[in-house]
Amino acid sequence: MVIVQEGERALLVFEGGFTALVEVRGGGRLSTHRGIVHFDDLLGQPYGAVVKTHQGGPVVILQPSLEDLMMKVRRRTTIIYPKEAAAILMRLGIGPGSRVLEVGTGSGALTLALAWAVAPTGQVLSYEVREDMLLLARENVGRTPLAPLVEIRLRHSGEPFPEGMDAAVLDIPTPWEELAAVRDALRGGGRLASLNPTFNQVERMAGAMIEAGFVQVDSLEILYRPILARPGRTRPVQRMVAHTEFLTFGARSLGGAEVGRALAGE
Amino acid sequence: MVIVQEGERALLVFEGGFTALVEVRGGGRLSTHRGIVHFDDLLGQPYGAVVKTHQGGPVVILQPSLEDLMMKVRRRTTIIYPKEAAAILMRLGIGPGSRVLEVGTGSGALTLALAWAVAPTGQVLSYEVREDMLLLARENVGRTPLAPLVEIRLRHSGEPFPEGMDAAVLDIPTPWEELAAVRDALRGGGRLASLNPTFNQVERMAGAMIEAGFVQVDSLEILYRPILARPGRTRPVQRMVAHTEFLTFGARSLGGAEVGRALAGE
Amino acid sequence: MVIVQEGERALLVFEGGFTALVEVRGGGRLSTHRGIVHFDDLLGQPYGAVVKTHQGGPVVILQPSLEDLMMKVRRRTTIIYPKEAAAILMRLGIGPGSRVLEVGTGSGALTLALAWAVAPTGQVLSYEVREDMLLLARENVGRTPLAPLVEIRLRHSGEPFPEGMDAAVLDIPTPWEELAAVRDALRGGGRLASLNPTFNQVERMAGAMIEAGFVQVDSLEILYRPILARPGRTRPVQRMVAHTEFLTFGARSLGGAEVGRALAGE
Amino acid sequence: MVIVQEGERALLVFEGGFTALVEVRGGGRLSTHRGIVHFDDLLGQPYGAVVKTHQGGPVVILQPSLEDLMMKVRRRTTIIYPKEAAAILMRLGIGPGSRVLEVGTGSGALTLALAWAVAPTGQVLSYEVREDMLLLARENVGRTPLAPLVEIRLRHSGEPFPEGMDAAVLDIPTPWEELAAVRDALRGGGRLASLNPTFNQVERMAGAMIEAGFVQVDSLEILYRPILARPGRTRPVQRMVAHTEFLTFGARSLGGAEVGRALAGE
Repeated sequence: MVIVQEGERALLVFEGGFTALVEVRGGGRLSTHRGIVHFDDLLGQPYGAVVKTHQGGPVVILQPSLEDLMMKVRRRTTIIYPKEAAAILMRLGIGPGSRVLEVGTGSGALTLALAWAVAPTGQVLSYEVREDMLLLARENVGRTPLAPLVEIRLRHSGEPFPEGMDAAVLDIPTPWEELAAVRDALRGGGRLASLNPTFNQVERMAGAMIEAGFVQVDSLEILYRPILARPGRTRPVQRMVAHTEFLTFGARSLGGAEVGRALAGE
Repeated sequence: MVIVQEGERALLVFEGGFTALVEVRGGGRLSTHRGIVHFDDLLGQPYGAVVKTHQGGPVVILQPSLEDLMMKVRRRTTIIYPKEAAAILMRLGIGPGSRVLEVGTGSGALTLALAWAVAPTGQVLSYEVREDMLLLARENVGRTPLAPLVEIRLRHSGEPFPEGMDAAVLDIPTPWEELAAVRDALRGGGRLASLNPTFNQVERMAGAMIEAGFVQVDSLEILYRPILARPGRTRPVQRMVAHTEFLTFGARSLGGAEVGRALAGE
Repeated sequence: MVIVQEGERALLVFEGGFTALVEVRGGGRLSTHRGIVHFDDLLGQPYGAVVKTHQGGPVVILQPSLEDLMMKVRRRTTIIYPKEAAAILMRLGIGPGSRVLEVGTGSGALTLALAWAVAPTGQVLSYEVREDMLLLARENVGRTPLAPLVEIRLRHSGEPFPEGMDAAVLDIPTPWEELAAVRDALRGGGRLASLNPTFNQVERMAGAMIEAGFVQVDSLEILYRPILARPGRTRPVQRMVAHTEFLTFGARSLGGAEVGRALAGE
Repeated sequence: MVIVQEGERALLVFEGGFTALVEVRGGGRLSTHRGIVHFDDLLGQPYGAVVKTHQGGPVVILQPSLEDLMMKVRRRTTIIYPKEAAAILMRLGIGPGSRVLEVGTGSGALTLALAWAVAPTGQVLSYEVREDMLLLARENVGRTPLAPLVEIRLRHSGEPFPEGMDAAVLDIPTPWEELAAVRDALRGGGRLASLNPTFNQVERMAGAMIEAGFVQVDSLEILYRPILARPGRTRPVQRMVAHTEFLTFGARSLGGAEVGRALAGE
């Protein structure tokens, strides 16, 4: 049994599937349209336990998944969807101890995913040009146990990044402008992922990566299609998120444009 | 710089993007339609380096990503696609130190993904009913550095699983038959993922999970759509993998069917 | 030049792409958030002409396409999307002079598509069990020039349909209950399409059709993905209609279940 | 009953769902891996009848649908899929008696669809720059009863098209180069559809159409997802056609660029 501890973040699931992510502090409470939950009722309970709102409705306490952490950050920009983050973690080849560079911190949601992947001993070094976003991201990351693995810095365009990074993620509108600096920061074989919403960006970035000597350059988009499973009436949902970002991946070779071009598929 | 060491598994990228996953042993070699690579040329090189085939063609050495490891296992059954594995890792809430139960080892590809996620200190306990698959999976996992984190056992239906597991994955045709045993193995709040190819299985399994007191039960499918990015001629690929498996997720509450039903969304 | 005539239905396109379908009667007018259009300004103009609202904004007059007619019917039930109607017309093999049976008139949108296809000399015979829907559909069809091709009747379950129909469309929740009657109404080689939202219905109906001796039985779903084409920023739309109806098709053979089964693909 | 006549084209359906499109001539025969069918056995039979191969296997005779006609043309270029043709017919607003311009005849498959839509009294005027394609298309169209509705001409770039066309379809790599000529050929309110495989073409063509005063300019792609309906094991197919062509639509206004821009949505 894993017990709910003071100060932990817990996901509460209410009737009808409605959820809330809370920080459990003695004396605290959460008021919802489903009733009030007193946090003193949560402390000392095992995760999975069923507690009651003041109206008697059932509430189940869960530990948040990485997806929950990402979806519940406060944000001012487009959300980074967990579906893209999942593919990035799978492709970047990072794990415990990796050092990852992120350019374009945004709200810090993807930063959390990268930190999750390099835990317990790696590091995520994230850069953001907008000071207001940097502060928001620090707050979002600081609220999680992953905070010690993350450092968020203000980006001054043109300055070099630290060298020897195992992987890099770019989430900025003109990623080709940072590409030379990112390549120099990556160790040989280090992988890069770029997130961009338009075809024009994908086309330009994939081309720039090949010219910068990256190999295994490819692009894709990811669709999650929810299925409504109900006895005798199972069907896909009627409306869905149809597009968020395209992903472009590559690995840094120690060769140049001629290697990038030679190894590119058709 | 990270240097290629004796005994490591490396991904070789050839002209046109063709790849091979090899174990680098001094004196070894790989013959391909693109020419021969001598492994003595790889040892001591940094990853990312460009070596030559005996015909002079360029080859780049990379460390395999988790996706590469999964896609290159030897298999006798349907492949578990990395796209499903990525979503599972994101949703199960597992990380360094987690203990994960897998029912239906298959070729061991998903086992590798789970081991990657719980490294460096967790454990994956995987069960398989077919002895030939079990041996194949042990071989596939044994070939990777993740092997110490994995134990693969023969499944005797009806026997209980060890208790206190943080998460569970079912990849078997009739997952509802193992559901009671899996629920008892999961700690409170532990999450479950089931992979199944047909709607009929999704409908039945989602219903069974709700009746077993699971909450946050939902189903989805994942589509990866490759984009061919080329200067002035960018378009989606013409044929794609359109369906592999549906995923059904849930978290174990310590309540029963009435809690499962009350918290289920429409 | 084709000139706007008294009593015709015209599609008006306003600034920003907003549209309205109107019946052009002298003295009439349409008030919108984009301003007022006086129909006297439309009469005598060629289609494609640019007229002005009372505020001076441009409005273009178009003849409605079949899609426009379908999307603008008044409805009380789920809409039949033109994407399904388009596939049905392509598959049913109907054209000028065909006689088509429709079971489940609904709002009459699909009825319009069928009438469009059999014009100028065919017939659509449509049945509806709900009297309120029948009246609505008659009103929707009656407002178009296709009305003389359509007859809408109240359906009394169990009664036979007229024989010798060239094709049939079923848009009802339990199409297998009408299947024997529909088969008897179809001439040999006549094709059938069934629209149903759930997998369960598709599975049951496809099986029932094979047992009823239908051949070329297959099912599919259709997705339209809008692309936002803008200079330098082209991308798919962010949210889309992900599911409406599955379609199941077949052709009536004069053989029975054994022929249906023998000719069914895997 | 509709009877198979000498000289008609019929679709034969064999065991396992395999199909062939044949011209039924007395004394003729078709040899397949499923056995031999003698056409004398077909003549005089009603459509839907079950005949036997010389080996005794069942064969059902059907009239070809428009989709069958399109899929069975001989071709040297990329196929025009019926799914795009279906959407085009739905959107162009054409019907019996319409006059349609096609630029880029290709194999003539889309030409057939347009002829089907304007039958029994309209006209399709189709232009092709390649003489070999023109001959192939004439042969493909000539084999069908739609031939009298179609005229295929060699295209000399720069020459004007006949005026007063009700709709136009462009299936060429650089449609913007023919746009001025096509606009002048279209009557006011006449609609245009362009088929193009890349995003770059869609972006450029949609922009050019707006500048040429077209309204209701929008782009989309169409996906058909086959469902394998089988008792207790229903699922989507595992591989599918993921991309063929994007479609861009618009209607000719009698205004210019300022009208196109004002009425364009975001």
